[in-house]
Amino acid sequence: MKKIRAALLGATGAVGQRYINMLDRHPFITLEVLMGGESAGKKYGQAVHWLFPDAIPERFAEAQVRTARPESAEGCDVVFSALPSEVASEIEQDFAKAGFTLVSEASSHRMDPDVPLMIPEINPGHLELLEAQKKARGWKGAIATTPNCTVTGLAIVMTPLLDNFAAEKAIVTTMQALSGAGYPGVPSLAITENVIPYIKNEEEKVAKEAKKILGAVKGGAIVPHELPIGISCNRVPVIDGHTETLYAEFPKAVKPDQVARVLERFSGLPQKLRLPTAPERPIIVRRENDRPQPRLDRMSGSVPGMSVVVGRVRNGIDERSLQLTLLSHNTIRGAAGTAILTAELMQKEGYIG
Amino acid sequence: MKKIRAALLGATGAVGQRYINMLDRHPFITLEVLMGGESAGKKYGQAVHWLFPDAIPERFAEAQVRTARPESAEGCDVVFSALPSEVASEIEQDFAKAGFTLVSEASSHRMDPDVPLMIPEINPGHLELLEAQKKARGWKGAIATTPNCTVTGLAIVMTPLLDNFAAEKAIVTTMQALSGAGYPGVPSLAITENVIPYIKNEEEKVAKEAKKILGAVKGGAIVPHELPIGISCNRVPVIDGHTETLYAEFPKAVKPDQVARVLERFSGLPQKLRLPTAPERPIIVRRENDRPQPRLDRMSGSVPGMSVVVGRVRNGIDERSLQLTLLSHNTIRGAAGTAILTAELMQKEGYIG
Amino acid sequence: MKKIRAALLGATGAVGQRYINMLDRHPFITLEVLMGGESAGKKYGQAVHWLFPDAIPERFAEAQVRTARPESAEGCDVVFSALPSEVASEIEQDFAKAGFTLVSEASSHRMDPDVPLMIPEINPGHLELLEAQKKARGWKGAIATTPNCTVTGLAIVMTPLLDNFAAEKAIVTTMQALSGAGYPGVPSLAITENVIPYIKNEEEKVAKEAKKILGAVKGGAIVPHELPIGISCNRVPVIDGHTETLYAEFPKAVKPDQVARVLERFSGLPQKLRLPTAPERPIIVRRENDRPQPRLDRMSGSVPGMSVVVGRVRNGIDERSLQLTLLSHNTIRGAAGTAILTAELMQKEGYIG
Amino acid sequence: MKKIRAALLGATGAVGQRYINMLDRHPFITLEVLMGGESAGKKYGQAVHWLFPDAIPERFAEAQVRTARPESAEGCDVVFSALPSEVASEIEQDFAKAGFTLVSEASSHRMDPDVPLMIPEINPGHLELLEAQKKARGWKGAIATTPNCTVTGLAIVMTPLLDNFAAEKAIVTTMQALSGAGYPGVPSLAITENVIPYIKNEEEKVAKEAKKILGAVKGGAIVPHELPIGISCNRVPVIDGHTETLYAEFPKAVKPDQVARVLERFSGLPQKLRLPTAPERPIIVRRENDRPQPRLDRMSGSVPGMSVVVGRVRNGIDERSLQLTLLSHNTIRGAAGTAILTAELMQKEGYIG
Repeated sequence: MKKIRAALLGATGAVGQRYINMLDRHPFITLEVLMGGESAGKKYGQAVHWLFPDAIPERFAEAQVRTARPESAEGCDVVFSALPSEVASEIEQDFAKAGFTLVSEASSHRMDPDVPLMIPEINPGHLELLEAQKKARGWKGAIATTPNCTVTGLAIVMTPLLDNFAAEKAIVTTMQALSGAGYPGVPSLAITENVIPYIKNEEEKVAKEAKKILGAVKGGAIVPHELPIGISCNRVPVIDGHTETLYAEFPKAVKPDQVARVLERFSGLPQKLRLPTAPERPIIVRRENDRPQPRLDRMSGSVPGMSVVVGRVRNGIDERSLQLTLLSHNTIRGAAGTAILTAELMQKEGYIG
Repeated sequence: MKKIRAALLGATGAVGQRYINMLDRHPFITLEVLMGGESAGKKYGQAVHWLFPDAIPERFAEAQVRTARPESAEGCDVVFSALPSEVASEIEQDFAKAGFTLVSEASSHRMDPDVPLMIPEINPGHLELLEAQKKARGWKGAIATTPNCTVTGLAIVMTPLLDNFAAEKAIVTTMQALSGAGYPGVPSLAITENVIPYIKNEEEKVAKEAKKILGAVKGGAIVPHELPIGISCNRVPVIDGHTETLYAEFPKAVKPDQVARVLERFSGLPQKLRLPTAPERPIIVRRENDRPQPRLDRMSGSVPGMSVVVGRVRNGIDERSLQLTLLSHNTIRGAAGTAILTAELMQKEGYIG
Repeated sequence: MKKIRAALLGATGAVGQRYINMLDRHPFITLEVLMGGESAGKKYGQAVHWLFPDAIPERFAEAQVRTARPESAEGCDVVFSALPSEVASEIEQDFAKAGFTLVSEASSHRMDPDVPLMIPEINPGHLELLEAQKKARGWKGAIATTPNCTVTGLAIVMTPLLDNFAAEKAIVTTMQALSGAGYPGVPSLAITENVIPYIKNEEEKVAKEAKKILGAVKGGAIVPHELPIGISCNRVPVIDGHTETLYAEFPKAVKPDQVARVLERFSGLPQKLRLPTAPERPIIVRRENDRPQPRLDRMSGSVPGMSVVVGRVRNGIDERSLQLTLLSHNTIRGAAGTAILTAELMQKEGYIG
Repeated sequence: MKKIRAALLGATGAVGQRYINMLDRHPFITLEVLMGGESAGKKYGQAVHWLFPDAIPERFAEAQVRTARPESAEGCDVVFSALPSEVASEIEQDFAKAGFTLVSEASSHRMDPDVPLMIPEINPGHLELLEAQKKARGWKGAIATTPNCTVTGLAIVMTPLLDNFAAEKAIVTTMQALSGAGYPGVPSLAITENVIPYIKNEEEKVAKEAKKILGAVKGGAIVPHELPIGISCNRVPVIDGHTETLYAEFPKAVKPDQVARVLERFSGLPQKLRLPTAPERPIIVRRENDRPQPRLDRMSGSVPGMSVVVGRVRNGIDERSLQLTLLSHNTIRGAAGTAILTAELMQKEGYIG
């Protein structure tokens, strides 16, 4: 496998740290350049407020953080962006103009009609937008994006429900982890022994992004899926792992057992291609009454944190409706993991490297 | 106001302690007899694992816990039961046979067709079942019950939504407090930094009980409401206060502003009768984006813990659907408070005293 | 009692909010002016991120926040300062120069030799420094300060241990509440399911301030007490209430029972003068094995949050040493409450009003 | 290396589960027999309330739990006991009489004068008590024990402080994890947003056991060390990892830097013998101000959870005193890990196998 050299924008943030963790031993992506804002010029190990129990891999601890501009990434095949959305838009465009291919976790460009919003198991074909994007914008490079951490688990579970059972409506309530808000993020005085029933802009993002991801490419643009989605987002005192309850309606009766089997058999192109960050099972179904639980199940699966864990599959108000609970690791499957998986797919498909 | 003498079954449990708290300064109900199981014979202050910050009111601390049998309650006008459901059924029947009127928080008799399941703001007329009950069972006394702590807030909010907007469907997700499981209840090792997506038997109870409460008396029995209810119950690391997201559908378009005004104007017989435990507003509506929050809002209102706090009233997937978040204090409005309010209503209506 | 008009610097912060709470119904101090930085010009209710369950008292919610300069406080008899220490020094001096008497919770001036550091039960006589201060600085006004939230409980408990048993050494470990760091303060990602064994500058402050508070006035300055104090400060996931373990050594054998009795009989000038914010018992002693606990005991006593709660009084490594656990509400006794009590004492003693 | 066959008493409890985890891939100890009380006769996977994120290793999930009696362990070379202390005494004696060598985590026999209380880095020579024990009791087998989870970290850190600096006094405050109380253990209603300043019998155990572990064998019995230890034990809302502050006094001045170096160089016989569960460094010293933290540091080291992590090494009240914070994983180093390490040492020294 041809090696790919990667650069990382926003290397010291909470999501940036996940990239460091996940790319430390990647079989063919070598993270060579760390870039930051205020941290530029310092050693990474000194600039970062490291959030994980495992130590910073030594070669990164000693690496110097570079300024976030195209020259810093010279020679790299792909640029991952873990920038905060407020600053991402302009910087990312500068890199694309300079000829770099970006995979961005920021929300700035997610809803641009010519920018693919990728979950490789669901919409690998959306990558073809990249050509139209280059042409339309006159860029040498291009931007691919990955979705909001809350939509990822939901979109993965909805895919087999739509494909196999033609789901017609989705009502979702989330119980989201603290790491979704980054660091410092949610003040402890706000969330201790509490639930906060609101996350700014989150509900709008989830509905819009899900429809784009589940949509189809027609004439160089995405026709969004029309699934009606109602959603209520809540913050709970959990470190990692977004839990979501899903109520869905269908045109015909659905049997929970059958749905469960369909969910756990769901598989996509990344599994076929045996991409290194693709979990054997994108969806793991638990049969116990009281699972999934974020603390116990967020790191499940063959690639820890990349599988969505589903449980409590049962009918809803009648035979034509379904209820289940899903859990998705918000900084792995919901951020760095899906971006890395996207880069792996892009490499295989010839978009980078 | 004629004084009422009360006895309490299950006085040392978590819910029993709430009765002690709430009846300490009641204007016309005097709690005279505390009864318990293993604690019988001991002083209450020594037998109880007291859970509240405020000290045990002195006269209760020094009171002797009596054995849970009818003779212990001689001379009392009403018997509150905070017994665990496993043991409640038989003991409560013994008291009813012996001529006592009970208000029970246990689930044992809630779904008996001739037993009223009371939320005084919603179904004061259900008390008429008591006569049929006495006749059918040949008892001198009778049993009234109050609902599960999770259904209370939901049923109160659904009432104006049904009465004014003819709601046709309710999809609910709960985030329930630890105190709902009693003491010792949920192990800290299970719930710390976690969400548990299951509470045994809870979902079935909520749906069934809500339909009974919202139902109509016909021919000496309740005809349950037919509202379809889908529900997912979760435990979160919060001490008191059940938070619930509600998605509802309606036959016509509903305007969130108008719904909010209807909710906050909701009022019932207890408010008209100015019962001491009736809050001025059964439903308080918050307009801020990020409320209600259990730690901040659970003790809201003119009778702390007796108002349901609603926020985030907004449309759902379209104009004919609605989403909101509600918060209800599970051991006050959801247990002891509603039982005391029921006893107050029963006294006014001539069922006790 | 002559009314006192008060102004408040730093009104929107976490400690500022406590003043609003505590002064809302004060018998003779009327809070008339709220001052702030970025919030100046806004209505208080809109400018503040209100942290408490009880609503903002209406007259404060509607009050306009004024700029933090002397003109804003014209006509006030006392100015409370809840400013962050970084900005307090200069602003407070401006007010003192302009003729105001300040009671400040900020650390900037606490260790100035001519500034009293007050816990009214311990060192009411230190107020005499105010005259020397005015003279030396050529100010018309003056600054009195109150100590760090962690030293307050410790100093109160040490006073009877020093006076009655001549304590010779104190080794202290603290488990401090989140509110001690203000808002937003400690990130939830840092403290959830965790202990942080360090609080910046805290250990130095506690030792120095305790020695000053326990010291004696000689020749217009404080001679600090020489008690050796060893201290380890930790942050724990508790909202309010600093818990501290104390190990102390004595020249002779001490009996835990006798010590407990001496502690609970401790009383000072504020109790003698029946100041409104003086608790009947500055120290409450609990005899149960497992108390004090912050969630249960932080609001104990006749003036909630103003009593230090002590438990587990027992010998240490031998008969001449003692161990106990103490709990002190960090934003009431450790901040606003002690400042208000100081103002009450100053009024009685003729320093203000 | 000769293989050792092991049996496990108390296999379904919280500590029992750690053995399953740690012995799953052990190079020479094969866990062959799981024994339990009420769970006897069931499959382990069905009998256990599994507490860890990683799944139960398959061969154990399918294993049948046997009755806790000697016949069940036939053919085994060593029996680990993770029994609750209430039931351990008699059952363990039955096994010893029947000829088995036990390594027990229960407290029942820890303080018996002829029973070694082992931390292999500190007192490997105490194993010689086993011969005297067999003789005195007329048993074919014997019992070795490992200490309370709170004493382990403390004893390891005290060893180089005693050996190199002749420490004369230790004042300790603990902040202990929930898993130390087993499952269900501490009720969430008791510990959420709280600290409990008491753990039953814990302080007595720590002082006594530390002195025995640090003692010397003389004439077939242990002469306990005379170090005076004062200790205050607290429970905090942390899942795993006991944090302890230590204040110690010395006959001469000690330099924190030098102490830190001595601590991190500490090593024992298990390191020399390269036992598989022996961490490269029994003590890891962190130089950052705010470490160790239980959530970040409890799994440190070459054998995760087996190293004690020390930080904040500094002088105390003067140059002859020292303060530091230590962290020890309570169910690994403080329980199963030290027991397994003891068995490894016993095998090497010819006591088993």
